[in-house]
Amino acid sequence: MRFWLILAALAAPLLVAARDMTDTAIRAVLEKQVADWNHGDIHSFVLSYAEKCTFVGKTVVEGRAAVEERYKRNYASAAAMGHLTFSELKIKRIEAKIAIVTGAFHLQRSTAGGGDASGIFSLIFERQAGIWRIVLDHTS
Amino acid sequence: MRFWLILAALAAPLLVAARDMTDTAIRAVLEKQVADWNHGDIHSFVLSYAEKCTFVGKTVVEGRAAVEERYKRNYASAAAMGHLTFSELKIKRIEAKIAIVTGAFHLQRSTAGGGDASGIFSLIFERQAGIWRIVLDHTS
Repeated sequence: MRFWLILAALAAPLLVAARDMTDTAIRAVLEKQVADWNHGDIHSFVLSYAEKCTFVGKTVVEGRAAVEERYKRNYASAAAMGHLTFSELKIKRIEAKIAIVTGAFHLQRSTAGGGDASGIFSLIFERQAGIWRIVLDHTS
Repeated sequence: MRFWLILAALAAPLLVAARDMTDTAIRAVLEKQVADWNHGDIHSFVLSYAEKCTFVGKTVVEGRAAVEERYKRNYASAAAMGHLTFSELKIKRIEAKIAIVTGAFHLQRSTAGGGDASGIFSLIFERQAGIWRIVLDHTS
């Protein structure tokens, strides 16, 4: 009995550390996405998606190549891309290699770019070969 | 070399069988949800969600109890619930116990019930103690 208590006491900080590492790693991916977007670099932005990802917007888009094409079509100019920020991020790890992220996005844009836009998103991240990648993005 | 080929040949149908079982099990959960909804039984409908689920609609709702409350508030009468159908279901297993489902919903409703409504959803299913449950629902 005492052994298990000691083991649990030893393991608890390790579990917290693992969770914190996941949070930090995923936040880093999202911060890189924001930086890529605000540099007008959609190609780098979509590299955070898994190759076989699913994107749900007004329709369902399958695969990173199709997602990139969609972004490039919908955000064809620097004005349309505007300035991106994420907020209200919540990260919940559901398996060792799977985490759910919810949050809000805001696009600050000129009238020429289509005006400000904002919404809500849910992401599923999967750690693939040591790298956290987006396997599902539903933005609405 | 030949050994691996034989092993692969033996394993392939097993993998297909496992995938088919996942598909069948998840489709059964969704069919039960549709039946529950169309019987006006929101409580049974939400039992397909994991207790610690996340629901993303206009806002983020955490936990099955809060999700049930939201459904009961937004669909307070048989007329508001209308008749539910799902379509365009795609099921993609990403881990042994995790699957992504995308699809469309349609609510056939009288004018008094608010008129027809439709949209798109993505779900994350997790097999918990042998049962596939929804851990994330983003509906838009």
